[in-house]
Amino acid sequence: MNNAEIIVIGDELLIGQVVDTNSGMIAHYLNEIGISVSRTTAVHDDNHQIKQAIQEAFTRVDLVLTTGGLGPTKDDITKNTLCELFNTHLVKSDKVEKHVKQLYQHRPDVLNRLTETQWLVPKDCVIYENRIGSAPLMWFEKEITKGGKPTKQILLSMPGVPQEAEIAMKEQFTEQLKKLSNKQILHKTIIVYGIPESSLAIKIEDWENSLPDYMHLAYLPKNRMIRLRLSGSTSNPHIDLNKEMSQKINQLMPLIKDYYIASDDKPIEVLLGEKLKANMQTISSAESCTGGRVAAMLNQHAGSSAFYKGSVVAYSNSIKEHVLGVNQQILNSVGAVSEQCVIDMAKGVKKLMQTDFSIATSGIAGPDGGTKDKPVGTVWMAFSTPKETVAKCFYFTGNRSQITSQAAFTALIELYRLM
Amino acid sequence: MNNAEIIVIGDELLIGQVVDTNSGMIAHYLNEIGISVSRTTAVHDDNHQIKQAIQEAFTRVDLVLTTGGLGPTKDDITKNTLCELFNTHLVKSDKVEKHVKQLYQHRPDVLNRLTETQWLVPKDCVIYENRIGSAPLMWFEKEITKGGKPTKQILLSMPGVPQEAEIAMKEQFTEQLKKLSNKQILHKTIIVYGIPESSLAIKIEDWENSLPDYMHLAYLPKNRMIRLRLSGSTSNPHIDLNKEMSQKINQLMPLIKDYYIASDDKPIEVLLGEKLKANMQTISSAESCTGGRVAAMLNQHAGSSAFYKGSVVAYSNSIKEHVLGVNQQILNSVGAVSEQCVIDMAKGVKKLMQTDFSIATSGIAGPDGGTKDKPVGTVWMAFSTPKETVAKCFYFTGNRSQITSQAAFTALIELYRLM
Repeated sequence: MNNAEIIVIGDELLIGQVVDTNSGMIAHYLNEIGISVSRTTAVHDDNHQIKQAIQEAFTRVDLVLTTGGLGPTKDDITKNTLCELFNTHLVKSDKVEKHVKQLYQHRPDVLNRLTETQWLVPKDCVIYENRIGSAPLMWFEKEITKGGKPTKQILLSMPGVPQEAEIAMKEQFTEQLKKLSNKQILHKTIIVYGIPESSLAIKIEDWENSLPDYMHLAYLPKNRMIRLRLSGSTSNPHIDLNKEMSQKINQLMPLIKDYYIASDDKPIEVLLGEKLKANMQTISSAESCTGGRVAAMLNQHAGSSAFYKGSVVAYSNSIKEHVLGVNQQILNSVGAVSEQCVIDMAKGVKKLMQTDFSIATSGIAGPDGGTKDKPVGTVWMAFSTPKETVAKCFYFTGNRSQITSQAAFTALIELYRLM
Repeated sequence: MNNAEIIVIGDELLIGQVVDTNSGMIAHYLNEIGISVSRTTAVHDDNHQIKQAIQEAFTRVDLVLTTGGLGPTKDDITKNTLCELFNTHLVKSDKVEKHVKQLYQHRPDVLNRLTETQWLVPKDCVIYENRIGSAPLMWFEKEITKGGKPTKQILLSMPGVPQEAEIAMKEQFTEQLKKLSNKQILHKTIIVYGIPESSLAIKIEDWENSLPDYMHLAYLPKNRMIRLRLSGSTSNPHIDLNKEMSQKINQLMPLIKDYYIASDDKPIEVLLGEKLKANMQTISSAESCTGGRVAAMLNQHAGSSAFYKGSVVAYSNSIKEHVLGVNQQILNSVGAVSEQCVIDMAKGVKKLMQTDFSIATSGIAGPDGGTKDKPVGTVWMAFSTPKETVAKCFYFTGNRSQITSQAAFTALIELYRLM
């Protein structure tokens, strides 16, 4: 049971209205216990399509996980479809009824005729409790003969609501599946910054060619940063995968030392936060074009109040002037998207918030507002440290949301390199 | 050519490191021109798997779109695999070479031996220009016999980089594909808020049952809001789909009037922005637990500077007191997560930023910091309008990021209902 396929069920995914984050989350948990995902398939809430996708998957693997189609409304048909596939039928579960009634004890408006269908569950499957929702988590098994040998096939079904699917994997299914895997899978990630993907590939080509066949390198570029992911996968118990991969990583290090950011696959805001916390230092931000995205990145993880104090989003020039103390003459002469303005913003917010570090951004996020001198994508940033305040100009490409998120990300990574 | 399948290629998707947003984007463009996506499949950067997935897809549909695996590095093998499938081989394209050299004229470090592989393209396919990247956009065609009839099968290949894939669809492929479709597809979305999904389903059951077989309703709940999406799809040219669907929507309206938010599938920040702009009014925010997310939502769309002036992210109490003017006694007695505190924050930021409206949030995002009286997920919000300042308390569930994003979203929708 070393390979699995995931089937994501829901019309909304196939018309582009909702982005599927569940399959990645499920893959992440499966990888941790040595199960690779060989394929993910998204299908409509359609009896025939769901059946076809599951049956095809079982010709390739013996473990299939489905997510979605378990709500109480008419378009949710996964439960009935699974009954057909596993030759069973729905029966009332007192346990699920009790759980659902307890879950909604303070919301009597939710308990109605449709909610009652949630405690009808397939007779021949194991039901695990969905702590935060009413849809059941289902574990189906089937004995079949494959190539003359008896084989067990497993299907796990979980809701499409991302929080519920995550709890299903985290608290129920992963633990049970762990007992069935016998393969080692490991990933090690190195983050580099400041070198194009193809130049990096040439620089480390000999090293990459020296990897044994059970190791594989992938380049994952994002926001000018490249995550180099070394993956190892073997069923050979005599290979010490962790040790061998660590050796390979040690050989790689001298080749990339000028671009190296971190050895963990941690987001940049976590790396930055850890450094600030270790030094008991604090940070604030003054944001124009990034509009609160630097702030949101800095406080998105638990414990951020130890180093993050606050931000001023100064979208209009009057806020830059009156709240952050940017010199009015600067705004009138060189304008808000300038070296002088971001330096004043960074100094101003550092003083206002009484922090050790600050970040300031001012740029043209587009789609309008660009000029020949300052095209859309131009972003000035300043970084104030206990020692100095420095400014730097960047040119980003893409649409408004891509420009602002690249700018927020770049601001954090540039400050991290300054520290 | 009314149905298509999408194949997403890349190891990173199947280990959960990157979320696929391309398939939804592609589906969105195809839907607009009357092509439904019946299935999306994600596979590894593996010759056999890519081939197998494409061949299977062509047994079900005659149009397949692939995204990913076109980079210059060793792990990108899609181009070679497509050559095998379409019995062709790579040749040098002077046009692509010229384009790539121009693209990187200011970045000589990117032009190297690996980049050169980007201008090797399959001989028997049409190449479209990728305006912002070096990977080619490829259009393959094949005549086959299906059920005794000659049939044309089309494969379109685009890069995995989201910006490049979007430009491929938007500027090149959609226009060409439009000529091949003969089906009408329409979606109409109604946004409702303040009613559970199952209660809504009961309320509109008779109406839903009255829909003709070429219309279909889906419930898309998110953040306490439900998008009701009515989809229509027909090849019958005598049906005026737009008119019939509008009639159905008109019948639905009286049933949901108490919960109705909007008839467009517009994000709440756009609806709010449009109302503010129409009234020439402005807004600011004072954020503790939402940490800049309300600000980022308010300014994420072009033109937001017309109504959004700025925000203070007041993570620490000293900022709440000294920048926003929250009474110190409130912070010392009832604390920052309280009705009095958010009211002071909303009034303070409105005054500081000189706006007509303001939003304030203060809550416990978790995972730590909860108490019996104020468990994790407790969020106080205040809304200041030209007439009044009102506060409201909410309890959200989920992890830190879910709590903060639900809170930011709820703040916008609650203010929208107050306006």
